[in-house]
Amino acid sequence: MSIKYRSPFEPKYIKNYFPKNFKVYTFNAGFKKKNLDLLILVFDKIVPVASVYSKTSTPSAPIIWDKKNNKGYCKVLIVNSGNANAHTGLKGIKEIHKYVKISSKIFKCKLSEVLVSSTGVIGEKLDSKKIIDKLNLINTKSSKDIFEASKAIMTTDTFPKTTIQYVKSNSKIIRVFGFAKGSGMIAPNMGTMLAYIFIEANLNKKFLNSSIKKNIDSTFNSISVDGDTSTSDTVMLFAVGSNNVYKKMNQSTYKKISSAITQVMMNLSKQIVSDGEGISKLIEVSVFKAKTKKQAHKVAFSIAESSLVKTAVAGGDANWGRIVAAIGKADKEIIQNKIIIKFNNFVLAKKGAVYSKIDIKKIDSYMKNKIIKINVDLGIGQFNKKVLSSDLTRNYIKINSDYRS
Amino acid sequence: MSIKYRSPFEPKYIKNYFPKNFKVYTFNAGFKKKNLDLLILVFDKIVPVASVYSKTSTPSAPIIWDKKNNKGYCKVLIVNSGNANAHTGLKGIKEIHKYVKISSKIFKCKLSEVLVSSTGVIGEKLDSKKIIDKLNLINTKSSKDIFEASKAIMTTDTFPKTTIQYVKSNSKIIRVFGFAKGSGMIAPNMGTMLAYIFIEANLNKKFLNSSIKKNIDSTFNSISVDGDTSTSDTVMLFAVGSNNVYKKMNQSTYKKISSAITQVMMNLSKQIVSDGEGISKLIEVSVFKAKTKKQAHKVAFSIAESSLVKTAVAGGDANWGRIVAAIGKADKEIIQNKIIIKFNNFVLAKKGAVYSKIDIKKIDSYMKNKIIKINVDLGIGQFNKKVLSSDLTRNYIKINSDYRS
Repeated sequence: MSIKYRSPFEPKYIKNYFPKNFKVYTFNAGFKKKNLDLLILVFDKIVPVASVYSKTSTPSAPIIWDKKNNKGYCKVLIVNSGNANAHTGLKGIKEIHKYVKISSKIFKCKLSEVLVSSTGVIGEKLDSKKIIDKLNLINTKSSKDIFEASKAIMTTDTFPKTTIQYVKSNSKIIRVFGFAKGSGMIAPNMGTMLAYIFIEANLNKKFLNSSIKKNIDSTFNSISVDGDTSTSDTVMLFAVGSNNVYKKMNQSTYKKISSAITQVMMNLSKQIVSDGEGISKLIEVSVFKAKTKKQAHKVAFSIAESSLVKTAVAGGDANWGRIVAAIGKADKEIIQNKIIIKFNNFVLAKKGAVYSKIDIKKIDSYMKNKIIKINVDLGIGQFNKKVLSSDLTRNYIKINSDYRS
Repeated sequence: MSIKYRSPFEPKYIKNYFPKNFKVYTFNAGFKKKNLDLLILVFDKIVPVASVYSKTSTPSAPIIWDKKNNKGYCKVLIVNSGNANAHTGLKGIKEIHKYVKISSKIFKCKLSEVLVSSTGVIGEKLDSKKIIDKLNLINTKSSKDIFEASKAIMTTDTFPKTTIQYVKSNSKIIRVFGFAKGSGMIAPNMGTMLAYIFIEANLNKKFLNSSIKKNIDSTFNSISVDGDTSTSDTVMLFAVGSNNVYKKMNQSTYKKISSAITQVMMNLSKQIVSDGEGISKLIEVSVFKAKTKKQAHKVAFSIAESSLVKTAVAGGDANWGRIVAAIGKADKEIIQNKIIIKFNNFVLAKKGAVYSKIDIKKIDSYMKNKIIKINVDLGIGQFNKKVLSSDLTRNYIKINSDYRS
């Protein structure tokens, strides 16, 4: 594939941050022809972890493995890119068993303390030897920064995804940081959203589980590039231990850490959708005053995933008729003449018809922005929902249909 | 818009069929700059009719009007293209009232016996005067054939859609024919699927209602261009009266008519999806052995509407991994290792993994066809579902994002 395309939303990178409580090893293990394709994180001690996985009923072998074996503690995390080890049957599980077993020997931990993720081609056999060869070399390697870690898990991503937040507590600093990959379901056979987040504090499994659950719906589950759920989506949250000496963290520190986790999950999910395949504009769909939480969710996703809305935004067209159609098909309990449709603060339709004082010039000018906000007020309840989406462009088609030619 | 694109699926047209029981009048009424944009059908007598409409909760004014007023009998049908009279509030209804009132005077019928449809731009005021001016000219015009009727209701369609079936009964012929428009939700502000079907026999409302209900799910509700439901979708079935003298039709004739209706609805819905915006290949997704009817439906549409599957087919890529992902996200009650995925008769995956004897050469060659069959056996029940879809190409993006430039 030789598509010269880069997302216009490349973020500021977190470079030269070398984690204090774990080692970062990266390799080219042969899953890709060149470039990094294997990441091994080794924690200094066993750390608590919370995870959420794709809700698909056709999960990849790594998800099946992790869900079955992991007990909420981790010593080693192994992530490869270029081969998803998905829909590979029992053989796929057996290959994981091989490299997990070697890992547990090398790093002196239980099998259940080795976590695994894979992203890349679906349906191809993953050869565990490629990973085992690198595991055996690990003593000869030096630890890398998180920017390097983020590069090792990329597939069709056009930029690496990293973020960091600083929590101040009693004049000490607690870092919450992470890295991720993802660019759609997605990509020439490739796909998947992966995110790994680390908190430099001693926190228990319960705190991690409630943090990840609290935030997942408004972050990683509120983005859509093409509506295609991957077989391999994974988000993990680790408490890697404190570098400061706390007798006991107070309530205020917990709250600050919690906010930082929210922010990190938000930043990473936003970076993923901002790198949506072929993206030229980022779309923020906000639905207000829905009757139920479910209705808010359905309407927001219906707009965010409408090919017609996404192509209109790509073309700089404030096509509110397509938004009406997307709202109408989403739910039966909509009251047409209560709907207010805005691009940003510009009203386009209300009371079941076009807005009488519509300012086409200003709206057309607004549509040239890189971030387009669609605000829909349903006027029948009190539930809100925000979803981020990418526009639908020629480059999306190129990336996803042309790679063999 | 100057997109030189035509669907490769242009059908054989039914030309020079002048209906015997109604008159066909067509005009350019000014909804479009040039070309026909107004169709008026006047039945010789009041005829029974059955209709189904878009399930949207933001219906167009014509749908609101028809559903409220029509009692299952029709004297006049008025369809305009170029303006959908959708999301136009009370004003939209008032405009309909004006031209329906005039029609009822001219054709000496009740208001409830005038049916109306509109397709085109959403949210723009429809000026009833444009229609009334032409109604007043109708005596000066001669009746046209059904090919002409089909042309008058086109929006972004690249070809008119007509079909006819002949039922033989006691050496007499009963014709079942129809015309339709539709090319997606869809098109630069335009959209909608409209279909009108006529049976040259004396049949009652009950027969028509049960016929349309029996067939709608497997025909017009089993096609998808972009998953976007229109505000204006309408299908109508008319029994226009017999031209032969029957004392009483026998059971066998009813059955034959019923089959012909099924065939006509099938043909027209297939023509619509075959003219899906930007189409290069037609996709037939068949799901077999689902656990429930709902599961079969969800899985078939998930595959048929997956942007990744649609772009893969456009690129001639037998990407079964994307089909696995589309199946997985559709329903929780899937058993991964029971799934069999085929393109046509070529097995690609079974027992939860790639098929061991996969014939890549033959499959790659098959993918060059214009019609691509995706067959998925879920292996857990007895429910089947077939959905037709179009591939997703550069031309779809062009048609839907570029029209202002």
